[in-house]
Amino acid sequence: MGAALALAARGRGQTAPNPAVGCVIVRDGRVVGRGWTQPGGRPHAEAMALEAAGPAARGATAYVTLEPCAHESPRGPACADLLAASGIARAVIACRDPDPRTDGRGIARLEAAGIATATGIAAREAERAMAGFLMRARHGRPHVTLKLGLSIDGCIALASGESRWITGPAARAHAHLERARAELILVGRGTLEADAPKLDVRLPGLAHRSPARAVLGHGAAPFGWIAVDRPEAIADTPALDVLVEGGAGAAAAFLAADLVDRLLVYRAPIVIGGGRPGIADIGLVHLEGAHGRWRLHDQRMLGIDRLEVYERVRE
Amino acid sequence: MGAALALAARGRGQTAPNPAVGCVIVRDGRVVGRGWTQPGGRPHAEAMALEAAGPAARGATAYVTLEPCAHESPRGPACADLLAASGIARAVIACRDPDPRTDGRGIARLEAAGIATATGIAAREAERAMAGFLMRARHGRPHVTLKLGLSIDGCIALASGESRWITGPAARAHAHLERARAELILVGRGTLEADAPKLDVRLPGLAHRSPARAVLGHGAAPFGWIAVDRPEAIADTPALDVLVEGGAGAAAAFLAADLVDRLLVYRAPIVIGGGRPGIADIGLVHLEGAHGRWRLHDQRMLGIDRLEVYERVRE
Repeated sequence: MGAALALAARGRGQTAPNPAVGCVIVRDGRVVGRGWTQPGGRPHAEAMALEAAGPAARGATAYVTLEPCAHESPRGPACADLLAASGIARAVIACRDPDPRTDGRGIARLEAAGIATATGIAAREAERAMAGFLMRARHGRPHVTLKLGLSIDGCIALASGESRWITGPAARAHAHLERARAELILVGRGTLEADAPKLDVRLPGLAHRSPARAVLGHGAAPFGWIAVDRPEAIADTPALDVLVEGGAGAAAAFLAADLVDRLLVYRAPIVIGGGRPGIADIGLVHLEGAHGRWRLHDQRMLGIDRLEVYERVRE
Repeated sequence: MGAALALAARGRGQTAPNPAVGCVIVRDGRVVGRGWTQPGGRPHAEAMALEAAGPAARGATAYVTLEPCAHESPRGPACADLLAASGIARAVIACRDPDPRTDGRGIARLEAAGIATATGIAAREAERAMAGFLMRARHGRPHVTLKLGLSIDGCIALASGESRWITGPAARAHAHLERARAELILVGRGTLEADAPKLDVRLPGLAHRSPARAVLGHGAAPFGWIAVDRPEAIADTPALDVLVEGGAGAAAAFLAADLVDRLLVYRAPIVIGGGRPGIADIGLVHLEGAHGRWRLHDQRMLGIDRLEVYERVRE
């Protein structure tokens, strides 16, 4: 399943409205087919892996990061039917597809065809990787990551506005990789006007994966940009994953609307003192209300900076 | 040497103006004597360990975290002479004593008595543990730790001033342990007037180790408190280790004077947004000047909070 998850990651940011799925077909201990959701959403991972495996799929085990779809569409047959027809003996599935057209029907169809199934293998990892797809299926909106490049004391700039650079090259490269995983990247109007950011993916070989750009707030958007008048309006875009990159006002607007699912903090080992805070007023009235909302999920060093990943606790 | 360092830690905060030293005497693989600098600075660690060892010291190895002193005083004989007279065969020393009355003379005296010596064993750990003593010996001032209890976005309170609590019980207990390791704890006048903090060590069995209290700024100090009119004036106190506990103005004053050697950040997994920053203006003009000053030395979880320890890079 680890290999299937790694294949799935290749499609991140390019498959909307479909999820980025990975599939590995193994027979007698050998990988006979690999697939991942292709740009635009088709072919699906299973179709690609079965195509590669050909007759070798007979009697094999298919590892797939999401329940195979049970619905045909003008764009292709249902993956559950393709798998059933392939003669595979067993399907190992990370998590169920909440799409009402599938939601258990894919697994049922496999079992009806005599294929042994196992579900819930590496489910948490798969759910995290498909967070945008699952958020949209369950709550009708994209998954939102707020990126912050902060000093020890939580500043994004000096009082003068000078902000280049807080973090170092390794942290900035990681932030560009995060851009490639989103379909939409958003900044506030103040940041747009002050910095005119390009918001592209400046990593070798990934420049073509730069996401669509959006600006929060009233007024016209520059050519090629999407105007988003309020945080909730991101639900009307086709994006599965949205990256909010600042500034303090846009960060606060998304936090106040409780529309941030993940905080990506690049923490530089510097003290600014009296600088510009990374997050403006979010309407917090008592400290009590701030607790229990965020859990440190991951942390690692990126050069001399440290990445802190927090997830919104929603249970 | 690890055992000697652990013994040394028992004296932290209680031995000024002497350093907190630890000593272990080992003969034939058995510990025959242990000692650490006693409250007020005497007896020294070596004297205590030799007293415990008695005749068993003959032919033994003494592990000591600081070069034994070479100067007699009205309060006791020189430890180098005591060790020489004890008949030990070997001395293992973590680091040299920069006190001009010793500074190599202790080691020379041991060697003149036919004792084999080795120096530099666990030197960095020992230097860190005696940072206050070494700072005073080399630069005539105490070692200063700035403690900050911060949200993800660097705030110490809501805009309203509400600050209880940012961090949880494990972080607060650790902060009280840090108090017990200092001789002097300092807050700004604003914090004194707003919070009337007790600044005592509220840990079972350590209440008697509460440090002296100081307030930064002009005007009279409360009964039992020391008035410190500017950061540099801490050099005039007898303290080896000073803990600065806030607020934002006191933190900024010490940082602006480049008198902070260690940042102790207790980071709570909460977002405040538009709150009170932990550090006021420190006179930073360009971001360039903020880089290269701090190195993340240690980090660990304390309950759901994370401790980040930064050290000032001075080479």
